Order: sequence, then C-alpha cells, then structure tokens
Amino acid sequence: MKRKVLMTPGPSPVPSFIREALSQEIMHHRTDAFRKILKEVNDGLKEIFCTSNPVITAASSGTGVMEAAVCNLFSKEDTVVAICGGKFGERWAEIAKSYSLNVIQMNVPWGQSPSIEELNNILDSNKEIKGVLTTLCETSTATVYDIEAIGKITKEKDVLLIVDAISGLGQEVFYPDKWGVDVVVSGSQKGMMLPPGLAFISISVKAKQALNNSDLPKYYFDLKKALKSYEKDDTPFTPAVSLIVGLRCAISAIKEEGIEARWKKFAKMAQAAGAAAQALGLECFSKRPSNSVTAICAPTSVKSSDIVKKLRNEYGLSIAGGQGDVKDKIFRIAHMGWINEQDLIMCFSLLEKALIDLGYKFKLGVSLARIEEVIYG
Amino acid sequence: MKRKVLMTPGPSPVPSFIREALSQEIMHHRTDAFRKILKEVNDGLKEIFCTSNPVITAASSGTGVMEAAVCNLFSKEDTVVAICGGKFGERWAEIAKSYSLNVIQMNVPWGQSPSIEELNNILDSNKEIKGVLTTLCETSTATVYDIEAIGKITKEKDVLLIVDAISGLGQEVFYPDKWGVDVVVSGSQKGMMLPPGLAFISISVKAKQALNNSDLPKYYFDLKKALKSYEKDDTPFTPAVSLIVGLRCAISAIKEEGIEARWKKFAKMAQAAGAAAQALGLECFSKRPSNSVTAICAPTSVKSSDIVKKLRNEYGLSIAGGQGDVKDKIFRIAHMGWINEQDLIMCFSLLEKALIDLGYKFKLGVSLARIEEVIYG
Repeated sequence: MKRKVLMTPGPSPVPSFIREALSQEIMHHRTDAFRKILKEVNDGLKEIFCTSNPVITAASSGTGVMEAAVCNLFSKEDTVVAICGGKFGERWAEIAKSYSLNVIQMNVPWGQSPSIEELNNILDSNKEIKGVLTTLCETSTATVYDIEAIGKITKEKDVLLIVDAISGLGQEVFYPDKWGVDVVVSGSQKGMMLPPGLAFISISVKAKQALNNSDLPKYYFDLKKALKSYEKDDTPFTPAVSLIVGLRCAISAIKEEGIEARWKKFAKMAQAAGAAAQALGLECFSKRPSNSVTAICAPTSVKSSDIVKKLRNEYGLSIAGGQGDVKDKIFRIAHMGWINEQDLIMCFSLLEKALIDLGYKFKLGVSLARIEEVIYG
Repeated sequence: MKRKVLMTPGPSPVPSFIREALSQEIMHHRTDAFRKILKEVNDGLKEIFCTSNPVITAASSGTGVMEAAVCNLFSKEDTVVAICGGKFGERWAEIAKSYSLNVIQMNVPWGQSPSIEELNNILDSNKEIKGVLTTLCETSTATVYDIEAIGKITKEKDVLLIVDAISGLGQEVFYPDKWGVDVVVSGSQKGMMLPPGLAFISISVKAKQALNNSDLPKYYFDLKKALKSYEKDDTPFTPAVSLIVGLRCAISAIKEEGIEARWKKFAKMAQAAGAAAQALGLECFSKRPSNSVTAICAPTSVKSSDIVKKLRNEYGLSIAGGQGDVKDKIFRIAHMGWINEQDLIMCFSLLEKALIDLGYKFKLGVSLARIEEVIYG
C-alpha cells in the first residue's frame, strides 16, 4: 500500500492522460490514419526541438540514435572530439571508438562545463577534426553545457556539432538552429513525459550532406533510408505505434503550455532545489546546474547511496544516486517532464526525514520554506 | 462510429488486459522491483521460445535484432547464405550486404519453401560458409519453412543457423534447440499480442562462442554486453519499461493457454482460412501455408489491392495486401496472437461482401460454413 513517487532523471513519470493514450487499441502503421498521426508528431517535434530540420523518430533507447549519429555522419578513422565530463559524454567516446573513429577525448572535471578555450585549441591544432560530440545536459553530473558557445566555434571552423539532448530536451534553453547544432538526439522518457522506447534525431542540411560520405555499416539506424520514409510520413521499419500515439498526446500538452514557458518553469524548480539544498547546509555538485536535474553532495557523515536506498525502500520515493567516482557522494533529484513544484516540496520533505534518520542535523522544514520562497516569491 | 478490426500480420490486436498493463504508472528500471519483472520475463521467454538459451529483449523493431545477429556473429567478408523467398528473406541479404559480408542469395520462388537439396548443394560446394540466414514464417508469402530439415544439414556441416521467427513465434511448431537453431529473432507485435517496440534474440552456446570472433562494429546491439547485463536481470541501456510490463502479462496469458495448444489452435484457423478461400473458388498462394497468416489469390477479375482498400475504408477491417511482384495479386489475413476463430468468421463475412461489391460471384455464406466445419467439426 506504500505510495510510490518517481523523481529519477529518466524514466520520469508519465501523466495519466498520456498513459490512457498508450492503452488505446493498436492500429496498423501503413494506413492514412497512422500517417496522419506521424505527420502531426513530426511537425510537433520540430517545434519542441526548436528546429526547421527533420526530426526522425526511431524505436530504440536514446543510445541507439547516438550510435546512428556516429555511424551515419562519419567514416572509419575520421577524427572527432568527444567532450567527456560525465557518463554520457564517455558514451559518445565509446560509441565512436567502437566504429574505429579516431577519438580525441576532451576530459572535463565532473560537475563542470567544458572550457570553450580548450575546445578551441583542440580544434585549432587538429585540422582533420570532422565533428564534436557533446551533451546538452550531462545527466550524470546534472550540468548544462554552453552549447551556444561551442556552436560558435564549430560553425566558424566548419566542424559538425552533435548534441545529446536526451535529458535536456524540453528542459534547457536550447536553440539548435540559431546556435549551429547539426544533429540533436533525444529520447522519450525524460522531458517528453513518455515511457522509454522512442528516440529522436534531428538532421541539419550540413549533416544531411555528410550522410553521403559515410562508409560505416548501418541498417536499422540508416538515416538516409529513414529520411526517405520521413518525407512520406512513413517509417522504414515497424514503428512503436502505441508510443507514437502517446507522443502525439505529449507534444500537444507541451505545446499548450509553451516550450519557453516550460524552460522557465524548470529553471525555477532547479533554482528552488539548489536553494533548498543550501538551506540544509548541503552543496550543489554542479558548477553550472541544469534545469532538468539537481545533484546534491551528501553530508560528509552520510553515504549518498544510503539516502537513496532509504528514500526508495522506506518512503517509496525514487531519486538517483551518483555514478562512477561520485557513487556515494551525490544524489540526484529530477525536475523534468511531468514533475512539478509540489513534487519538489514533497521530495525535500522526505529528504529531510531521511537525513534526520541518518543522524544529520538541521532545522526541520528549512528546505521547504526555501522552495516556497523561490517558487511563490 | 465505424468499428475497426485489425487482422494484419503485425501489428496484430492487443487485448485490453495487456493494454491496461501498458498504461500502468512507470517505474525506474534500476530497481529490485523491475529486475524481478525482467527475470520473470526472461524465464517466460525461454518457455515461449522452447529454448534453454538466453533470450535477450531489446527496445527496437524486429529488424534491429536481425541486424544484431549479423553484426555480432560474423566478420567482414564472411560468407553466409540468405534464403530469399520473400521480403523478409531479402532483408537478411540486405543487412548482411550492408556489413560487407559475402552473401550467397538462395532464391526461392515466392510462396514456396526452400529446397533442402539445393541448400545442401550450396553448403557442400562452399566450404567457407559460416551461417545460414532464414525465416520460420515468411510473412510476405504466408509460407512456413522446414526449419527442422534445414537444421539437420546446418548442424551436420557445423554452420550457424539463424532464424527470423518474427511472425512465427508462438504460432508455428518450432523447437529451436532440438532442431539445431543457433539464433532466433522475434518481435512483440505479432504472436506476442503486444504493440511493436520490443525485439527478442536467443543465443545458443555455439552462437555465444561466435560472438568472440566478430570484428564488425556494434554498440546498441552489442550482444556480449547484453548477455552480461542479462545475467544480472538487467539491461545495458534504458529498457522500454511499459512494454516489458505488458510483456510479462502476455507471457503469463500464453503460458496459461499452453504454447503447443496455441500452435494447434492457429493451425486449425489456418486450415479453416484455406478451406474458406477454396469454398469461394479462390486459391491459397502458399504451397506450404503458415499457421500465422493466410495468403489468398484474388479472383483474376479483381485487384487484391481493391479488396484490401474496400475492406479498410468501407467496412473498417484491416487485412494486408501483397508486396513486391504480388502486390495486386494476393491479400493476406492474419490469424495470430489475440485473433480468434470468431474474428475469422467475421473477416470472411466482410470479405464475401467486398467480393460481391467487386462483381465476383459465389454462393453467399459458403466460406463461413466451411470455417465452421473445420473449427467445430
């Protein structure tokens, strides 16, 4: 009978109006009725991605379309830069290496955003670099990267810019076209308020040209084939019909609230979460906190994994722990998709309870007051 | 207000008890609660696949795991045989070619099942052949292949046997372990009564060894990584949580009815559909009809695509037309997953109506009587 609450940075909660859409009777995908839905979804995704480029939807996890970006845009032994400041930047490097690309790994201390000067130097000293692979919101450190600044230099140097916006889409201020981003990848289970199972990839004109030069093998994730189907409101393979019906529903709800209004709402929630942590005497892990998720350093006397376990097992609240080196040092609270301000209040209330249980001292209610000050103030 | 009925060979209808499971609140996948579900699903899939080999579930269409089989088991310039007797056999050849494999295409006339003697000769005269890629039920021609006979010769010659059972799983008599099948791929949207979005792949001990020799690039579909996660009831990437919750539900329903009992039920439905066509004076297209879908040749005076269009647009019934060369010659009626004997009656009743509309003459009700004779007789 324990009520379960989900505040992890993906999957994030799916509202009941979308879950109802997911449970509709299935329809065949090679019909005018489904093509109409797909057209609506394709148009809606452009708005949510703030792009005029086509956005292709695949049946896969986000990682699948990260791989699609690599194996469609590049060739064996091409040189790329992977910006590695967390687990998902490292994934870029892993994928590129698995296709025998020459990967320059630009390591960024976890919790920091990449140095634009350093990237500039790397690009200047390696004229053969064909692309930069990076992240909008590095979920593992709850850090948002300055894609606008990165885009300025990749554009100037005519290098492809590929951005993983899996947790950032619909959350972080993001103008890919204006900023010169060529490829954006994302997934369904974060800001889009859907279950996992759909992945998205947008393709700029420059990226489209690059597709013709790639000699890497691909089939399921062949973007040229996908674009050909896209133009006919179709898909190359059987699409995940029920999730796409749910996606139409999610897109319409997001558009109604407004993309930019949502960015502002989540920025405020992030600010509130940061302030609440501070009120508890705890530090934010990130030097450039994202709108999607807040990473908080556990008190030195407490392992963050114990906080996460206690919240999940005793109080029914799922938040995320740290990954890699910061496994026992940080915990992460998502404020994305369907999660709202009241969830944040409830979450910090349970966090206060868990911290008390674990022997950490502070004034009861102090974090909740700070959230109210930021949100209602 | 028109009632819609789906009798296409994938997606096939999803029963309401599964659709309800799909609409449950989402849970986080890195939890004991989800691992428990995944363990149940993994065990259940072994039963449905009639195998003791691990069956991995991926978030993708069936084509994704067809590609996984190719890029994980083979290396560049390896020689394989692709048995091409329809659209899905041709897909095997395409995938293998896209990875620069040396593909011997064994062409089989559409509607026929492959000649075992011919395959034997091919294998005898090309000692370098490493694998045979084939189909259990070739959906495009509604033909079931004699995998038992194929398995006898691939086993004898120590060649890997990889079978696409996307539309055949849960439908056709199929004992992969006994018959010497190394890899079976399948999908969620046919006999499994789920929406599209999940794909399955089983891996024999021999296939597992082959994974170590493959030099082809892969990441999202890396089976070695997937097997490592599988052993811990985990997934390498975010799984399609809601579909897996639905899958648990589907597996339990299929097990309750019994795998072999279901094979028999669909065999009877296939027999009834074939007899009903004959009663209408129409021929079955396949020389070795499957349990999953029946392909019927349209009367010479009528284009099969007109029958399909009329049924869909005027009577709300979705069946499939022909593909490729037989586009206007055949139409296909699925009897898989949740489709039952009464659906077949209703389907042939509407088919009679459509044929009358299109000027074809026969005795009203004749096909329905034949179905009843086969099913109730």
